[in-house]
Amino acid sequence: MRLKSTALWTDKYEFTMAQAYVEDNIHERSACFDYFFRTLPYGGGYVVFAGLEDVLDALEAFRFDEAALDFLEAQGYRTGLLDYLSQFRFGGTVYAAREGEIVFANEPILRVEGTLIETQLVETVILNILNFQSLIATKAARIRFAAGHNKSLSDFGFRRAHGAGGIGAARAAIIGGFNSTSNMAAAQRYGLAAVGTMAHSYVQSYNDELTAFRAFAAACPDHCILLIDTYDTLNSGLPNAIRVAKEMEANNQRLFGIRLDSGDLAYMAKQARRMLDAENLDYVKIAASNQLDEYLVRSLIGQGAPIDLFGVGTRLVIGEPDGMLDGVYKLSMADGTPRLKVSDSLSKATLPGVKNILRYINGQGGFAADAVVLDDESKVESMIHPTEPHKTFELSGREYEELLVKVMSGGRRVREPVSVAAAADYAQQRLARLPDEYKRFEYPHIYKVGLSPKLTTLRDDLIARHRK
Amino acid sequence: MRLKSTALWTDKYEFTMAQAYVEDNIHERSACFDYFFRTLPYGGGYVVFAGLEDVLDALEAFRFDEAALDFLEAQGYRTGLLDYLSQFRFGGTVYAAREGEIVFANEPILRVEGTLIETQLVETVILNILNFQSLIATKAARIRFAAGHNKSLSDFGFRRAHGAGGIGAARAAIIGGFNSTSNMAAAQRYGLAAVGTMAHSYVQSYNDELTAFRAFAAACPDHCILLIDTYDTLNSGLPNAIRVAKEMEANNQRLFGIRLDSGDLAYMAKQARRMLDAENLDYVKIAASNQLDEYLVRSLIGQGAPIDLFGVGTRLVIGEPDGMLDGVYKLSMADGTPRLKVSDSLSKATLPGVKNILRYINGQGGFAADAVVLDDESKVESMIHPTEPHKTFELSGREYEELLVKVMSGGRRVREPVSVAAAADYAQQRLARLPDEYKRFEYPHIYKVGLSPKLTTLRDDLIARHRK
Repeated sequence: MRLKSTALWTDKYEFTMAQAYVEDNIHERSACFDYFFRTLPYGGGYVVFAGLEDVLDALEAFRFDEAALDFLEAQGYRTGLLDYLSQFRFGGTVYAAREGEIVFANEPILRVEGTLIETQLVETVILNILNFQSLIATKAARIRFAAGHNKSLSDFGFRRAHGAGGIGAARAAIIGGFNSTSNMAAAQRYGLAAVGTMAHSYVQSYNDELTAFRAFAAACPDHCILLIDTYDTLNSGLPNAIRVAKEMEANNQRLFGIRLDSGDLAYMAKQARRMLDAENLDYVKIAASNQLDEYLVRSLIGQGAPIDLFGVGTRLVIGEPDGMLDGVYKLSMADGTPRLKVSDSLSKATLPGVKNILRYINGQGGFAADAVVLDDESKVESMIHPTEPHKTFELSGREYEELLVKVMSGGRRVREPVSVAAAADYAQQRLARLPDEYKRFEYPHIYKVGLSPKLTTLRDDLIARHRK
Repeated sequence: MRLKSTALWTDKYEFTMAQAYVEDNIHERSACFDYFFRTLPYGGGYVVFAGLEDVLDALEAFRFDEAALDFLEAQGYRTGLLDYLSQFRFGGTVYAAREGEIVFANEPILRVEGTLIETQLVETVILNILNFQSLIATKAARIRFAAGHNKSLSDFGFRRAHGAGGIGAARAAIIGGFNSTSNMAAAQRYGLAAVGTMAHSYVQSYNDELTAFRAFAAACPDHCILLIDTYDTLNSGLPNAIRVAKEMEANNQRLFGIRLDSGDLAYMAKQARRMLDAENLDYVKIAASNQLDEYLVRSLIGQGAPIDLFGVGTRLVIGEPDGMLDGVYKLSMADGTPRLKVSDSLSKATLPGVKNILRYINGQGGFAADAVVLDDESKVESMIHPTEPHKTFELSGREYEELLVKVMSGGRRVREPVSVAAAADYAQQRLARLPDEYKRFEYPHIYKVGLSPKLTTLRDDLIARHRK
């Protein structure tokens, strides 16, 4: 399913600049912008790049209907711009890392080439989608890392998500390694697996818990998960669930699972497992939820809590604690000339020119280092630290791959859309090639990202020129 | 502008429970749910209630089209539920605090009455909208409190917002006290004031800064704000802006402002103000942005930084640092009987019965205390602490107002929608009546919320019944 027009998911200044370009008649000059972020979220060692297919949808749908044009006119924009926008479709070229790629700070992971006006107008929507979905996919990957590969992980976060952002969060969670979502809008739109159990209100709406459980089992015998903590988990919820499980067995049915949503989840899960197994209900699964994140999941796994399904809500979909990825979209070429934004500190100066990323591979097939290079450099012998120029790193003789691929040309995708499932598979393949020291939560190893000597020289020459 | 159907902004378990209710033929029984939150965000003393009109839109638009019904059928839902949903429209009654109201933890600030199935199905969308918009409106109110009433505050956050959630964030920011937003989709949808300046890329796209400034001034002479930190704020950006301002004066135009987006904003603003004033450009305003929040705004104001417009982005729209409001939606009545969820701790037990909130007023017209009462109690003489029953608080003789008003009956609004501007005005009126000790950032005074003796007795009797 495609996005509706997102042409007004745009900050006002894009239109103000666009009008100035049109009226100065420079809007058709060529330009190139880079998307990159500066800080890895969660104190972690990597980011899972997500949102690309939604961005391509947004670019293909970036049109101005009558209502949008009327609105812009009412905002004071003039005929020159309005005429231009009435015919607008994005016609640029996009190179990007694949969706699900493992990426790092200060790499240009998406590059947009086209006219000055079209590449500028799409800034806001690109930033909005990539910053958010990459943030959440990365959180999901961390939770998956903590859970291991045998646990089922489900996004339960929509009720605390940021409005409709919760739909994109569910998509990103799957790309990062989750199995399913509770949210039906996301499941419908992106073809995701949906799961759900029951709420406390269901149990409360009956006069007693056992009657509620029996009614629920009768209505969904195939995938019945009973929430057992409405009144008293171990003294009421679990005995009633066991009783219903036995009644289901008598009907040749099987209770699928129970859910814990409060209390000490490790203790409760162990008690529940023991009581279930004592009744020969070893097939009944245990689901748990309640303020989970990667640290709590790791703790529960470490304690041997026999939990089969983790429902992770708020802390996943808000990207707790960071809540944002600081991605930016910066001009690197205009009218055929490399451009940069100088700054007081080298770390905030942008990288000029049309660039690619070469990923160097270690002897075991793992990711070793990334070099940001000018696009006409097919390989480099060494790279230079982006802000500490005395630090260099040898690359000669190593295998490498080019990270950016052309995904859109003339405003059209150059290949079929990649499904969420395929992007999720790709993320898992790539995460498997990232050594574990970059994945640990405490002081992860810092992945090396450097610049080619040629790019370094171009940047430093431009800075020197602006400084004088 | 109305929302499209949000009937699938719904967690799967709502449909599973709905099907169970239909198949048990109890779906038309009466029910009542309360929305409330348990924790005040930001370590603050209050919440600005926001999102109500969007919720009412969502309830009026809660319909299932063919695609939604097909999707639900593919998910395994059966004819009984599907037939019911194909005819569904929400027909319940909603009581709520006014949008923009100042509210506190553990108060039922929205109440939904109707059939069991309809009140259950709308849970997720209500939580999603109210939790998010109230979070952001509260953040905005804190920033307004820091800025005082003479500064202009603009939401610049869409690029770091959570997908389409950024649109709701802009709406909520205005309700909390902001003047405008950068985002055009939000401005169009909700009729908000939009503002924008220029990006660094605009300056970079020209060969030199002065040429860029002149082109921009020519294209938008009426509201020209020049971004002066692309190369060197005080040695290049500001002198060039002053030169363009003088050229504009020669054309009988006035430069509207300059924008600072990096560096020491207090120092830079003072330097800029001095240099502008020395050139008789005292009318040129100074805008500032860059990782602002209530603490930085307070610090800048405290230092006497002559900033006229604050552009506040990321930390506003992500509700930093909390990122969420922990609102829940709990069953309080079913089939004519009060219901509660018991819990190990009294603080997590829900409040049974149909309830209202009485707000007691101090001698100066300020808010003094809120009593949660049963709906048939028109006044109470005292209230009891919700979790520490030995603490009581005298209310007799005080003035009070009822906080909840009927906003929807039979699934239809009972009055015209309240505009965002009207809700924002209401919020400011109400904030003015909240004593400042509840608004301070460090250890704010804790506003008293208690229960009527009758409600306390009902709750305690029900807990005792469940415990035995």
